[in-house]
Amino acid sequence: MSNIKPSGYIQPDYKPGKNDVVCDFYIEPNHGLNVEKAAEHVAAESSIGTWTAVSTMKPQIQKMGAKVFEIKGNNVKIAYPEELFEKGNVPQIMSSVGGNIFGMKHVKNIRLNDIHFTKDIVKSFRGPQVGVKGIRTLLKTHERPLLGTIVKPKIGLDEKEHAKVAYDAWRGGLDIVKDDENLSSMRFNKFEKRIKETLKLRDRAENETGEKKVYMPNITAETEEMKKRAEFVMSNGGEYIMVDIVTLGWSGLQTIRECNMDWKMVMHAHRAGHAAFDRNPKHGISMLVISRISRMIGMDQLHIGTASVGKMVQEDPAIILQNALNDEWHGLKRTFSVASGGLEPGMLPELVNKMGKDIIAQFGGGCHGHPGGTVKGAMAIRQAAEAVMQGIDLKNYAKDNNELAQALRKWS
Amino acid sequence: MSNIKPSGYIQPDYKPGKNDVVCDFYIEPNHGLNVEKAAEHVAAESSIGTWTAVSTMKPQIQKMGAKVFEIKGNNVKIAYPEELFEKGNVPQIMSSVGGNIFGMKHVKNIRLNDIHFTKDIVKSFRGPQVGVKGIRTLLKTHERPLLGTIVKPKIGLDEKEHAKVAYDAWRGGLDIVKDDENLSSMRFNKFEKRIKETLKLRDRAENETGEKKVYMPNITAETEEMKKRAEFVMSNGGEYIMVDIVTLGWSGLQTIRECNMDWKMVMHAHRAGHAAFDRNPKHGISMLVISRISRMIGMDQLHIGTASVGKMVQEDPAIILQNALNDEWHGLKRTFSVASGGLEPGMLPELVNKMGKDIIAQFGGGCHGHPGGTVKGAMAIRQAAEAVMQGIDLKNYAKDNNELAQALRKWS
Repeated sequence: MSNIKPSGYIQPDYKPGKNDVVCDFYIEPNHGLNVEKAAEHVAAESSIGTWTAVSTMKPQIQKMGAKVFEIKGNNVKIAYPEELFEKGNVPQIMSSVGGNIFGMKHVKNIRLNDIHFTKDIVKSFRGPQVGVKGIRTLLKTHERPLLGTIVKPKIGLDEKEHAKVAYDAWRGGLDIVKDDENLSSMRFNKFEKRIKETLKLRDRAENETGEKKVYMPNITAETEEMKKRAEFVMSNGGEYIMVDIVTLGWSGLQTIRECNMDWKMVMHAHRAGHAAFDRNPKHGISMLVISRISRMIGMDQLHIGTASVGKMVQEDPAIILQNALNDEWHGLKRTFSVASGGLEPGMLPELVNKMGKDIIAQFGGGCHGHPGGTVKGAMAIRQAAEAVMQGIDLKNYAKDNNELAQALRKWS
Repeated sequence: MSNIKPSGYIQPDYKPGKNDVVCDFYIEPNHGLNVEKAAEHVAAESSIGTWTAVSTMKPQIQKMGAKVFEIKGNNVKIAYPEELFEKGNVPQIMSSVGGNIFGMKHVKNIRLNDIHFTKDIVKSFRGPQVGVKGIRTLLKTHERPLLGTIVKPKIGLDEKEHAKVAYDAWRGGLDIVKDDENLSSMRFNKFEKRIKETLKLRDRAENETGEKKVYMPNITAETEEMKKRAEFVMSNGGEYIMVDIVTLGWSGLQTIRECNMDWKMVMHAHRAGHAAFDRNPKHGISMLVISRISRMIGMDQLHIGTASVGKMVQEDPAIILQNALNDEWHGLKRTFSVASGGLEPGMLPELVNKMGKDIIAQFGGGCHGHPGGTVKGAMAIRQAAEAVMQGIDLKNYAKDNNELAQALRKWS
């Protein structure tokens, strides 16, 4: 048997069609290779090839090889025949185009910057069940940004203390209260008791304010445990579940989304851990890719950052919002973009200017760090949103709104 | 209400005790901060703090803060009270110490190099069910490295072609055949049919060789689908399941391990995707950390690389083998270290020299790329192992072993 050489990965004349998945990579070659040669190895390793010609290769398989069809500097576009991917299986897709390639000696750096899925692959997933429109209907708030907080300290409060902080935020004027990413079920704050206490005070806050209020409890855990927690939330009148999508992983996330066909809750996605692989602009996987997959699986809300304000380094969330979460995509519902991470009221005008009004803005320290405490912090945030909606400068609006004035004095 | 300042994170005199989880970080400060200041922010963000003092802080919570107790250059050790973590919940643990910190503006780079868990946390997981000893008993091979191959081309063969390649590898002398990381259930190679065909030929290979042979089918998918696939393997006489641990994620992995209490199969862990976050020595999460968690959850076998030989860039797998997979760890069974990625027979002596004989060595292209095809490739690998076990130089051994001689001529 003669070896069939794995070749033909470089095809500059190839025009990708509707059955191709196209990946945009940044590739820096290693060891004196040029970009083309490194790209060839990447295309092989992420489709049908390996480091040496194998006797078991067959001509019909070579047709399934990935095709490098564009190289501009270090930016490389590779087309993959759709049949290389299992529909409805994100882990398999990522093992193909987001797997071994990151460790290859042929590259010094490689980053998966974007994926363009085929219609059939997108339609093999559920997409958001509630979406932006459904969330606005639930919250009865159609124009302004939705306003939320994270209970702080992020961990350490007991169940009743937690519920009280949430209650203060709601009655101060916020729509949404969420758990933080590392709060699940703790010795000092048990999941079930926290849910009961917090939803009880949500009801009170709704009665007192006449506004709809929601609580997003963090159910992140092993998959079966997440199911139990989600069902507990639902049976206690909660409308939301929150998941740490990166640290729990794609398999479990798909499972919870599938279960949610029955639950019909809103799924809020926290991205803790993303920056381990998306912070370096030359290596890893972009937040844009994570965002596309999150919407495809069916996250109704997704943390995407704060547009250069706040405490985190990030890709431009405005681009993610426009290109991955809010655009027409084979009929999938839209995912609400969540801005969070070091926000304070004074940042809201810039945030809305960059990301638009169709966002959820979450303030943690920027609420509870207010000199007057959580209620006044929440009032300041709501006042900032009113100012933005009326097109009034925050400093002007603060003249008649003392809570906002205090916040601006502290932080801006 | 007066604010309580979140402080006391720097405690150079603190001696971590048996109820502390200790994390080793590499921290490069940003924006003119020094390491100590950046470490303080990291300790806050990964335990009880945020970017500003909050009115909701309470004195008893401050005691739960993380403690930076050692700084040597950029290497920082932080102790976390065990109660910050939920036992049996890897996603929660990673959301705490492997979450937001990677995106913080206070650091330019940050890497979680190691985690030392408490006994109670370790014991809240299952650990390996079969382990090194159980696998050697199953394979009836107690001294030499176990020898395996990955069916190649990695994707594209149909079910019968796949089974035939496996059969050739087994009858040539290999113990183990595995699917590749991106092969799940494809249009051209359906999971169920592949399992049936391959296990049928495994039986034939066992009958013909009189040796025990095993097949590791890749069940990676959404969690419920993985369960179905695992049960299908079991009901067809398979003893192994393979999972892509990084792309499927911790929640689903814990679920499958839990189900495996009933199935009692060997769990093989592929690490495709790890290098997106562990390749940069200054940022991300180390493979050592991934290895510890994998053993704690209960992987019986784990890819850890090839000790500088082969096609991949990597952390030193010998250190991972010694410190995370093969050492005494509160009574947990040992995880078999799997060397894979660009191996060919000529590399086996160096591999064994660096990693010892208690490894599984897997040859993909280094088997099927043999000039004589898969059977002879497998023979060459087995011959190389015999030479290593007898302490004979490969070139000498190749004088009477033509398959090995051919392999050495091609690659070494």
